[in-house]
Amino acid sequence: MPETRVTLAAIAAEAGVSLATMSKVLNGRSDVAPATRARLEEHLARHGYTRRNSAQRSDFVELVFHELEPSWSMEVIEGVEEVAHAANLSVVLTVSGDRHAPSADWIDGVLRRRPVGVILVFSDIEARYREKLHSRGIPFVIVDPAGDPSPEVPSVGSANWSGGLMATRHLIELGHRRIAAITGPEDMMCSLARVDGYRSAMNAAGLPIDPALIRFGDFHPAGGERHAAELLALPDPPTAIFAGSDLQALGAIAAGSAAGLRVPDDLSVVGYDDIALSRWMSPQLTTVHQPLRRMGEEATRLALRLADGVTPDTLRMDLATHLVVRGSTAPRAA
Amino acid sequence: MPETRVTLAAIAAEAGVSLATMSKVLNGRSDVAPATRARLEEHLARHGYTRRNSAQRSDFVELVFHELEPSWSMEVIEGVEEVAHAANLSVVLTVSGDRHAPSADWIDGVLRRRPVGVILVFSDIEARYREKLHSRGIPFVIVDPAGDPSPEVPSVGSANWSGGLMATRHLIELGHRRIAAITGPEDMMCSLARVDGYRSAMNAAGLPIDPALIRFGDFHPAGGERHAAELLALPDPPTAIFAGSDLQALGAIAAGSAAGLRVPDDLSVVGYDDIALSRWMSPQLTTVHQPLRRMGEEATRLALRLADGVTPDTLRMDLATHLVVRGSTAPRAA
Repeated sequence: MPETRVTLAAIAAEAGVSLATMSKVLNGRSDVAPATRARLEEHLARHGYTRRNSAQRSDFVELVFHELEPSWSMEVIEGVEEVAHAANLSVVLTVSGDRHAPSADWIDGVLRRRPVGVILVFSDIEARYREKLHSRGIPFVIVDPAGDPSPEVPSVGSANWSGGLMATRHLIELGHRRIAAITGPEDMMCSLARVDGYRSAMNAAGLPIDPALIRFGDFHPAGGERHAAELLALPDPPTAIFAGSDLQALGAIAAGSAAGLRVPDDLSVVGYDDIALSRWMSPQLTTVHQPLRRMGEEATRLALRLADGVTPDTLRMDLATHLVVRGSTAPRAA
Repeated sequence: MPETRVTLAAIAAEAGVSLATMSKVLNGRSDVAPATRARLEEHLARHGYTRRNSAQRSDFVELVFHELEPSWSMEVIEGVEEVAHAANLSVVLTVSGDRHAPSADWIDGVLRRRPVGVILVFSDIEARYREKLHSRGIPFVIVDPAGDPSPEVPSVGSANWSGGLMATRHLIELGHRRIAAITGPEDMMCSLARVDGYRSAMNAAGLPIDPALIRFGDFHPAGGERHAAELLALPDPPTAIFAGSDLQALGAIAAGSAAGLRVPDDLSVVGYDDIALSRWMSPQLTTVHQPLRRMGEEATRLALRLADGVTPDTLRMDLATHLVVRGSTAPRAA
């Protein structure tokens, strides 16, 4: 490859700009008009002339979480680590900001560190930060975006709506009619999509949707326990709960026990995520498998391709989810 | 601090060596005799003249695992991340080698990356790698060492022997007599220490130690399940199992269910680690709390102090463990 590659000067000549301008684009400097940059990046990409091949490139990707959640985060980390390792890159792990976006501190740090690429486990990233990363030539990919990412924001998610639909349909098929949904925060796209899947399944089965049975919360066990306790204390409690995460499902099972209900005999619970431990719970969790590890892998692959100057046709990828039926769901008691 | 600090030349003069020699020591070059190095490092440390304050220092610590185990690894990561973050450092996460030591590849990479310090979650590190890190001035700390680390190897562990003792004593106090121990690999110090604690508790209570009831394995759920299934199939099966990890305990509980035994009514199980999810299991796990997060914190603090040229009196630290009694243990059925 190096032997046959054209020089930067030749690409600049082909594009009709000076070597200096081409060099600025290559090095991610911000003093080139966006339209010009885009055009020149295309020329560079066509010739496979990339920053990644340059001598000064760093040798790590940066993975940013707003919080480290055992199980969930670890599966994403494993996926990122595997792809990075295969590309001879290290992984820098950073915790920053809240669930919506990394903090201002972080952006300064990452511009200094200049990773090959950034994997963000966040709802979104502010336009001004996006522009900063872009101008320095640092590609980024959002995992599990929760806002409403515009198509030009590279992101890897999973089929949340289908997940909600499958989980709810499974409970309906088991004869349940009063089915509750505990999901994540109301301002996260994944929570909304899952609840919409739940609603569609209920509608398709001709079942009424009771707003009292839909709860928004966080994805932790304690939240699942609190919401489930409230739901089970209703005058007409649900016989099944679709939880927004396996951790929430554990909380819901605990609330069931506290209320004297056995899972799955008296109460069916479906989780979400299919974390590694879900098959080791008692009962083993019926859950929606979210390919967290593969999401980490694909996000890293996408970031590395972007770093190589390759821009795929589509920057948004949703991986499939599927239902895993285990022991926490059963036919509704007669 | 910078205003009042003496120059490197002044320190060299005080120590009676050339500036070139002092500079070699400061930069971790290997061509200085160990005794001389040690003496000169003391001079540097006394004046607070450290590599960390130099302009070229990197801005990350490196955390190396042989495998990422959800829950367990994540707690260590959280501890490392917190201390690193407070020191304005990033965390590079690497997976390498087997449980005994990182791979040869890794050592080349880390010497190139030059982290401020290295946290190794391994049994040990080969003397020749130790020497390489030392000669480049990269301090390292081993978390949960499993070999038999010599006192000059900085390490942070936990009180494994006491953990085994407390877990077993708890089961004895509940009236159990046939108590099994499933622990980690036979070549890991932590496994041996826990089993020795188990033996001491049995001896102290005047109970016989049946070698058939002691199993070495790995720390995963599947291993716990297999060993527990074999133990429960013995002609005179145990009524209680002390597991080497919470994950093994989950496996043991699954094996109990498969054998028609209820935990804790028919079978008591004690875990080890006290991972975040252990209080969300059904039943909630009785377990030995291992301060994994604090072990990560302390290891990072120690690495940063070493990077600052400070050598604490003792390089080996064992943090206390304690028993957390929850719902997976009960008095032996009459």
